[in-house]
Amino acid sequence: MIRTGIIGATGYTGAELLRLLARHPDVQLTQVTSRKEVGTRVDALFPALRGHLDLCFTDPDADTLAAECDVVFSATPHGAAMAVAAPLLDRGVKLIDLSADFRIKDASVFERWYGLPHSEPDWLANAVYGLPEFHREAIRSAQLVACPGCYPTAVQLGLAPLLKAGLVDVSDLIADCKSGVSGAGRELKLGSMLVEATESFKAYAAGGHRHLPEIRQGLEAIAGAPVGLVFLPHLVPMIRGIEASLYARQIQKADLQRVFEDAYADEPFVDVMPAGSHPETRSVRGANVCRVAVHKAPDSDRIIVSSVIDNLVKGAAGQAVQCFNLLMNLDETTGLMAPAMVP
Amino acid sequence: MIRTGIIGATGYTGAELLRLLARHPDVQLTQVTSRKEVGTRVDALFPALRGHLDLCFTDPDADTLAAECDVVFSATPHGAAMAVAAPLLDRGVKLIDLSADFRIKDASVFERWYGLPHSEPDWLANAVYGLPEFHREAIRSAQLVACPGCYPTAVQLGLAPLLKAGLVDVSDLIADCKSGVSGAGRELKLGSMLVEATESFKAYAAGGHRHLPEIRQGLEAIAGAPVGLVFLPHLVPMIRGIEASLYARQIQKADLQRVFEDAYADEPFVDVMPAGSHPETRSVRGANVCRVAVHKAPDSDRIIVSSVIDNLVKGAAGQAVQCFNLLMNLDETTGLMAPAMVP
Amino acid sequence: MIRTGIIGATGYTGAELLRLLARHPDVQLTQVTSRKEVGTRVDALFPALRGHLDLCFTDPDADTLAAECDVVFSATPHGAAMAVAAPLLDRGVKLIDLSADFRIKDASVFERWYGLPHSEPDWLANAVYGLPEFHREAIRSAQLVACPGCYPTAVQLGLAPLLKAGLVDVSDLIADCKSGVSGAGRELKLGSMLVEATESFKAYAAGGHRHLPEIRQGLEAIAGAPVGLVFLPHLVPMIRGIEASLYARQIQKADLQRVFEDAYADEPFVDVMPAGSHPETRSVRGANVCRVAVHKAPDSDRIIVSSVIDNLVKGAAGQAVQCFNLLMNLDETTGLMAPAMVP
Amino acid sequence: MIRTGIIGATGYTGAELLRLLARHPDVQLTQVTSRKEVGTRVDALFPALRGHLDLCFTDPDADTLAAECDVVFSATPHGAAMAVAAPLLDRGVKLIDLSADFRIKDASVFERWYGLPHSEPDWLANAVYGLPEFHREAIRSAQLVACPGCYPTAVQLGLAPLLKAGLVDVSDLIADCKSGVSGAGRELKLGSMLVEATESFKAYAAGGHRHLPEIRQGLEAIAGAPVGLVFLPHLVPMIRGIEASLYARQIQKADLQRVFEDAYADEPFVDVMPAGSHPETRSVRGANVCRVAVHKAPDSDRIIVSSVIDNLVKGAAGQAVQCFNLLMNLDETTGLMAPAMVP
Repeated sequence: MIRTGIIGATGYTGAELLRLLARHPDVQLTQVTSRKEVGTRVDALFPALRGHLDLCFTDPDADTLAAECDVVFSATPHGAAMAVAAPLLDRGVKLIDLSADFRIKDASVFERWYGLPHSEPDWLANAVYGLPEFHREAIRSAQLVACPGCYPTAVQLGLAPLLKAGLVDVSDLIADCKSGVSGAGRELKLGSMLVEATESFKAYAAGGHRHLPEIRQGLEAIAGAPVGLVFLPHLVPMIRGIEASLYARQIQKADLQRVFEDAYADEPFVDVMPAGSHPETRSVRGANVCRVAVHKAPDSDRIIVSSVIDNLVKGAAGQAVQCFNLLMNLDETTGLMAPAMVP
Repeated sequence: MIRTGIIGATGYTGAELLRLLARHPDVQLTQVTSRKEVGTRVDALFPALRGHLDLCFTDPDADTLAAECDVVFSATPHGAAMAVAAPLLDRGVKLIDLSADFRIKDASVFERWYGLPHSEPDWLANAVYGLPEFHREAIRSAQLVACPGCYPTAVQLGLAPLLKAGLVDVSDLIADCKSGVSGAGRELKLGSMLVEATESFKAYAAGGHRHLPEIRQGLEAIAGAPVGLVFLPHLVPMIRGIEASLYARQIQKADLQRVFEDAYADEPFVDVMPAGSHPETRSVRGANVCRVAVHKAPDSDRIIVSSVIDNLVKGAAGQAVQCFNLLMNLDETTGLMAPAMVP
Repeated sequence: MIRTGIIGATGYTGAELLRLLARHPDVQLTQVTSRKEVGTRVDALFPALRGHLDLCFTDPDADTLAAECDVVFSATPHGAAMAVAAPLLDRGVKLIDLSADFRIKDASVFERWYGLPHSEPDWLANAVYGLPEFHREAIRSAQLVACPGCYPTAVQLGLAPLLKAGLVDVSDLIADCKSGVSGAGRELKLGSMLVEATESFKAYAAGGHRHLPEIRQGLEAIAGAPVGLVFLPHLVPMIRGIEASLYARQIQKADLQRVFEDAYADEPFVDVMPAGSHPETRSVRGANVCRVAVHKAPDSDRIIVSSVIDNLVKGAAGQAVQCFNLLMNLDETTGLMAPAMVP
Repeated sequence: MIRTGIIGATGYTGAELLRLLARHPDVQLTQVTSRKEVGTRVDALFPALRGHLDLCFTDPDADTLAAECDVVFSATPHGAAMAVAAPLLDRGVKLIDLSADFRIKDASVFERWYGLPHSEPDWLANAVYGLPEFHREAIRSAQLVACPGCYPTAVQLGLAPLLKAGLVDVSDLIADCKSGVSGAGRELKLGSMLVEATESFKAYAAGGHRHLPEIRQGLEAIAGAPVGLVFLPHLVPMIRGIEASLYARQIQKADLQRVFEDAYADEPFVDVMPAGSHPETRSVRGANVCRVAVHKAPDSDRIIVSSVIDNLVKGAAGQAVQCFNLLMNLDETTGLMAPAMVP
């Protein structure tokens, strides 16, 4: 059994890690930390876990964490994560970080978009971007994995086959993305209240969202060239799910369906939908899967890709467990094969 | 009082007409028709109207309708509407049609997208497109008003200021649109069931949606030039509301906020949101308003417009009443000034 | 025009008052107060009111309020309301209070359930309970109206015909009540977040809810005898609406449907549903109506009454406007006749 | 591997069986039947199962089914189930029926409530009621298991400890129950459409619901005496979940919390919540668990029990798998230990 810790486990990403790891056959949870909830039983905060976990929240120092954990998942907010990570990494702990702190390679870009300097540039340089479909081997040998954001996962998996095959104008990409409310986190915010968010739909952050530089960095790595990207997120009145509608101008003929099917033929967690169909977010609810469909817009040279994930699973906790499996030389799919919960 | 009829009043558009007209100070509802529900009290089908309407559904012939109604709203499905309309129009009745049958001027385009020939080409030629913001005077003197579709209303109101001012490349427009489930109508469909549609989000009709030619026709009339348009609709797990995220490449410098504010300064039912803000669909819930916001995408030459309406009000029944007011020489806002229902 | 103020207008009850009063033909809003939002435009906080109100939030002293308002609605939380009310009442202002502070006649009962002493026992003695169906004449001549709670409105209107007719055992009443999330108010609470509350249902406060003594007091006034009552509230994943399922043991034969129809024959805002039917909360969404249905449980001597209201309208702001109309000698239905918003 | 079939697998109960059995370590699905969908891939109808099942719907005769299946789950509607079951039972197949056809022991009661005669009285006599908490040993040796209805499961598990301990007046029980919309099935019904059912709440079937005689039969078996029961179901705007609020008059002193904890101490799938708490339906979403809490109503001799299940899991498919495990001498919890999906 792999002794495993979760730092900052009171948010939705942390809760989802608990749900997945509670049933992971190779994991023994040894530390579940939260400064605010020290001493509270985990299943008192999350009654859905009653009968599955017999732990209380703790707030151990780095030495204790390092002594008791072979691996640590960090689910703290950005900014806090780098401060928490360094002492553990220095002690040789393997760390899977779900915050934004180690995703963006250029510290100045991080600083521009997150409004704070990066305090751990060395570890940043060593971090491996945890999108297994494109960085599988690097993840296997990493000490620090920076798990992608939710929108970046949906967009990169949706556009990659087109970029890799050189089929589209990379200077002119549009990602119109929609997310359920859990993407806004478990902190109290007026806009996340049921009365404010349900039965309504809106765009937000049209002036610039922090996932833009991350997506651009990822797409540029895939395309091997600078990309031009418009990214607009929207809030959907539901708990889970992201849909990304992606628009790219086709510049070379191809059998698009086949390009996608070939690109993901060996991927356990990317599902290319049949030609002519559209994936629904509920078809990945609770599952570590990205489903994509590719279409040609009528009377147009635009390709449309629709890509869906569960923001808490393939967009966060599930992908982190997928990285964990790689990191620990387990079968990549261990603990991740439950079908989506439909209906 | 204007003696008014509603044909096909059992759908959601019809129900919304009933809600609005029940309180319209100049309207006396004389005929509310439904073949399936003849003899049923209207408020037995729609208990929310108990105490507001003392009518039963009827199925009168054209002579009776013409004798008892000065104006008729037709809320039947496309295809049926043209057959119902002609006998009334021939008898001199003013008709406000909410179906698609008289929207598309080119009968061959109608036939291509709707899969049936147009049986009333003469009345089609006489129909006035009922988007008051751009066709106000023609509506005043029309006999037949063809009310726009819901998506076309949101998209045209959102893009018009840019097209009129010649600020964007009209060959490269993208409309990523999202609608609540009432847009799919009251007919029984698996995809409209709560269990199937709630807590999920999806794109649909990527291969081509019937509103595409209508939007293109409308934008071309506004721009005075052919337009290139990608249109992708999505289904949102909520009852009412449409949001259109519109992407256009800016080709000429301008103060975008001012362009929009000037364009709609005198419009009672188009609200330009403050710079930097995003409209929510709930802010127009039940109200005959379109709210729009304009943004510049970061690191890009793309303009983003977000346009929201209530698909059943400004996207259907409310706009029809607005046309009715114009047609009958009433104040355009009569019966339409209730604020949106928030929360 | 009646110069009208709203104190504490940033909550959901306040927002609903704004929505209703913005269109009330006899009301001129002169003061809309909020300590936290002084100087903010009301329609900046509530964009749905854009175009309907040209006011900013203020925080005036009692002299200014008294000088500028003929009537004041108070929508502050309990505890705060009595402190705010007294100076206005002392200056002769008519006050319609939507908090709990003046509902419970026995100050010691108030203290037991609300955990604080009552600071204004004299005004408490003068307050009239604002349930027009049972206290219409007293409201007309009141200076201070204490509007009922949402659950108490639904329960009293549902049980009153049985109690008045002496048909049931008043020592054995059960009220199983369900409310939408807006009943929990606009304050930030984890349990009111969309992710926490949607797609879930639960009972709460089984050990005792503050509306219990208010309901009991109201039922005892109607029955003229002590009543035994079990009251259990539940949270429904929706914005608005209360349904009360009421169980009473029948002790005397009667035509129940007729008893209800007779009891409410002249009431503009209580609708007895046809025999055999069940009211839905959406049939009163946004409307100042209580709809009730009465049934006999099979193989049992129990009567079942189902009573629905919109907690923000007949359960709060609408009922307050109804009281205002009585207080100001207007037609009781003024500004309250919009049908429910369905769908 | 146990060769397993599912008859009538296109409804929500069938879909949930597929979800659970796809991951059951001892199950090999050999036949998944549907008359309407013969030849359709199962994962074409249920895309959430893509990658998990490689089967098409079939419509085999009884001989083929008997040859290819050791066990069959029947998820057909009531009335159809008995006709389908008999030929399989006659051929020695073990059958787990999820319909109502074999639940009610008295065929005349069945006929009164379901409006059709029972065609298989012999098999009815042999059927074992599949509520493992009270009939575990009988299920182990059954050939035909009649799985309980969803409401009956929640009510019986909630009231049983009180009945067994003789603490309450069994002639005066009230069950106020609430269910998500999936309980109404996957057939097209206006009342199950999102636009009709979301953002609304209502009671239904106050005049009598088919689960009443089943609940009464179950409670009488537990109490060993006739019971008086009022049962009122309600529709909640959500996909899954049942909450039962149960009211019983206490006639004997007891430590209620301890009574419940003792009653269910050894039960893997019944969770007694801590004193003073209330279970939420989401805490059992997707999980085969019933959570119950017991309270004393203030100023009353009434006990309140709140019992929650997922109607599709512990209320249907999960309980059926639990019975299957017993029937096949597997560990009772096999394939059923995934925690609820929260958030």
